[in-house]
Amino acid sequence: MSNLTINAERLLRGIEELGRIGRDQQGRLVRVAASDMDKLGRDHLVRWLQEAGLDVAVDRIGNIFGIWQDEANTGQAPVMLGSHIDTVIDAGIYDGCYGVLAGLEAIESLKEAGFAPVRPLVVAAFTNEEGVRYSPDMMGSLVFAGGRDLGEALASVGTDGSVLGKELERIGYAGKHEPGFLKPHAYVELHVEQGPVLEREGIAIGAVETLQGISWQRITIDGEANHAGTTPMSMRRDAGVAAARVISFLADRASASSTPTVATVGTIAFEPNAINVIPSRATFTVDLRDPDETHLREEEAALAAYLDKLAASAGVTIHAESLARFEPVTFDARIVSLIEDGARAGGLSCRRMTSGAGHDAQMIARIAPAAMIFVPSRGGISHNPAEFTAADELVAGANILLGVAARLAAD
Amino acid sequence: MSNLTINAERLLRGIEELGRIGRDQQGRLVRVAASDMDKLGRDHLVRWLQEAGLDVAVDRIGNIFGIWQDEANTGQAPVMLGSHIDTVIDAGIYDGCYGVLAGLEAIESLKEAGFAPVRPLVVAAFTNEEGVRYSPDMMGSLVFAGGRDLGEALASVGTDGSVLGKELERIGYAGKHEPGFLKPHAYVELHVEQGPVLEREGIAIGAVETLQGISWQRITIDGEANHAGTTPMSMRRDAGVAAARVISFLADRASASSTPTVATVGTIAFEPNAINVIPSRATFTVDLRDPDETHLREEEAALAAYLDKLAASAGVTIHAESLARFEPVTFDARIVSLIEDGARAGGLSCRRMTSGAGHDAQMIARIAPAAMIFVPSRGGISHNPAEFTAADELVAGANILLGVAARLAAD
Ligand SMILES: NC(=O)NCCC(=O)O
Ligand SMILES: NC(=O)NCCC(=O)O
Repeated sequence: MSNLTINAERLLRGIEELGRIGRDQQGRLVRVAASDMDKLGRDHLVRWLQEAGLDVAVDRIGNIFGIWQDEANTGQAPVMLGSHIDTVIDAGIYDGCYGVLAGLEAIESLKEAGFAPVRPLVVAAFTNEEGVRYSPDMMGSLVFAGGRDLGEALASVGTDGSVLGKELERIGYAGKHEPGFLKPHAYVELHVEQGPVLEREGIAIGAVETLQGISWQRITIDGEANHAGTTPMSMRRDAGVAAARVISFLADRASASSTPTVATVGTIAFEPNAINVIPSRATFTVDLRDPDETHLREEEAALAAYLDKLAASAGVTIHAESLARFEPVTFDARIVSLIEDGARAGGLSCRRMTSGAGHDAQMIARIAPAAMIFVPSRGGISHNPAEFTAADELVAGANILLGVAARLAAD
Repeated sequence: MSNLTINAERLLRGIEELGRIGRDQQGRLVRVAASDMDKLGRDHLVRWLQEAGLDVAVDRIGNIFGIWQDEANTGQAPVMLGSHIDTVIDAGIYDGCYGVLAGLEAIESLKEAGFAPVRPLVVAAFTNEEGVRYSPDMMGSLVFAGGRDLGEALASVGTDGSVLGKELERIGYAGKHEPGFLKPHAYVELHVEQGPVLEREGIAIGAVETLQGISWQRITIDGEANHAGTTPMSMRRDAGVAAARVISFLADRASASSTPTVATVGTIAFEPNAINVIPSRATFTVDLRDPDETHLREEEAALAAYLDKLAASAGVTIHAESLARFEPVTFDARIVSLIEDGARAGGLSCRRMTSGAGHDAQMIARIAPAAMIFVPSRGGISHNPAEFTAADELVAGANILLGVAARLAAD
């Protein structure tokens, strides 16, 4: 199969088309998990899977699978390619969608070429990878891999107060299959890097061998509402000022760190949120990451110690709740080598690398050999409508995926 | 009239009753200006004014007046007593309502006692004093005093995108009278202190002779959205971290100041406000106050300089917009003396003081002699449901108001 290639035009058209679906009135791409917009994207994907002649299956956590099997290989553990099609708020069009559509494209190309795989091939689109509406992120693949109880996951309450299970029913994607009904022989995920490394080094393909640890927390600070004009500075218990101290602390500490730690406060709310009222409550999220589990624990401990000190000095009470916690992951060495081999055979530059973002592959790695292929992201920009990867880079990555999938399906 | 007193039971019952009107599902008092909840409070007040036999007039900015005049005094400039009945979000029951209901109570008591004033007596409830929904605060009295164009005020866009003029029409309080149709001879406003001074010093009555300057701004910081996991700290343009720096700067500077400057950030929002996206935009309000205009200007200049420096160092752009700007006010010396005289005659302790909060009196002071009477606030707490003033303190303040009103109406 060495000189089989994907249908570049079909892949690129699919990415553009899916990227137009699920936009709000301001034109922002907002297919957050299990929303009406997500339903539009899912319906579109399912139609494509059907048109490609795949069997469509949906599991109880809403993961969508397009399965290519025949009489000869039914019963064999399948090779799974996949990612997600849910998005952040005001997203780019590549994050997740690229991996799903390239997976579908690889399977279609193999099918059309008359390839007869020893194993079934499956393309998967996992639910709520982004974690923007429901925590934790990578929830669909986590449940699929048995890492979280299904009932608990379905009971997740979103940032808008919605319940995931109810939303999946409402949009028609509470499927019948038990999560884990497929036992993958191997899993490969193609994704845009979302970071600056490949572009900076002028390298076409990343063979992702590790993925950093992720710690998400929700911090709630309670102070006391009072009048902005009459309350002397010394008598305040200002939850908003305390939140600002935490945000500065995290940014300063991560910036000064000798490790590649990153820390982000992406969401915040004050109560009562009125111009002349000292905030009685501030709620915000913390996203802490480090490729080294020991370092990540140190960062978590430093934050906890800071919060204790701050509570005492600012006269506030502070509550921290874990929303997601995943240790760093090492991917399957053989698949990483297959990716490198594929790049070499295709005359593409390639480097081994770590992933800064979380991905479904890190969950599936719990139950099957897994690895990832990265392609460059212009300016390292992601989770932003300006996210961009050039057409030839997208096609190159998809061709590597095709080759690795064909190799694994011949095992 | 020296030993005439108000009907304490009627006043206290009225405050409690109005305090039950306009609560949300969580039980929070939320009669923000020109909202459905505000309408409920206004309707209740108008019924009381009618029951007291007063002529009810509403002006085009929605200010409500209850007018007691007779053939003998019609045409004389009236003595006006007043405040507001709009509230902050999750408010106490005294702020504003106390002054309006005590004004009504004073007029009713004088009427029932057969007092024959040389001048009409008017109780006023001004629109949008709190400024929580529409900026600036004290808008109704400001427009009434000719300090802001009516059309401009009616076009104000609220925090929820609503337009004040449309909302006043919708709730039935876009009145017919031109603002300023009454020319007060004098204006007296009774209010809870909302600060800690009277309670700390064990003093019953504050004769308010000055009111500090107020500067409100909305700050918008634009950075760049990017992925929380893949973007190195050194490559970020994080609007949220920049906002946190400003909040800390303001709190540190005001706390260290040798003047009684106060600085508050009461509202904030991030965009896109997602847990794993670096904020592209942070919007927040700044409330700066100082009794001294020169100092207040220094604080504004220091903030502006800090924002310039921050924009350069954090790679963000910053836009500051003024929402309200009022210079410190000195009240009418004669009315302040009348308040002191009244307290002395009633055997009540009294001190001259400054007001930390903004009040309608500061606007009416532009067109008529004006002053304020304060009573203690327990723990200095205000803009908080725990706001509290004891019944005997409320009654004492209302009796001072009655005496001063009677004296001014006999001019
Ligand atoms: N790939 C990606 O953006 N995943 C979302 C989860 C994360 O925040 O890393
Ligand atoms: N009295 C009062 O709380 N007025 C609201 C305007 C201000 O913030 O001072």
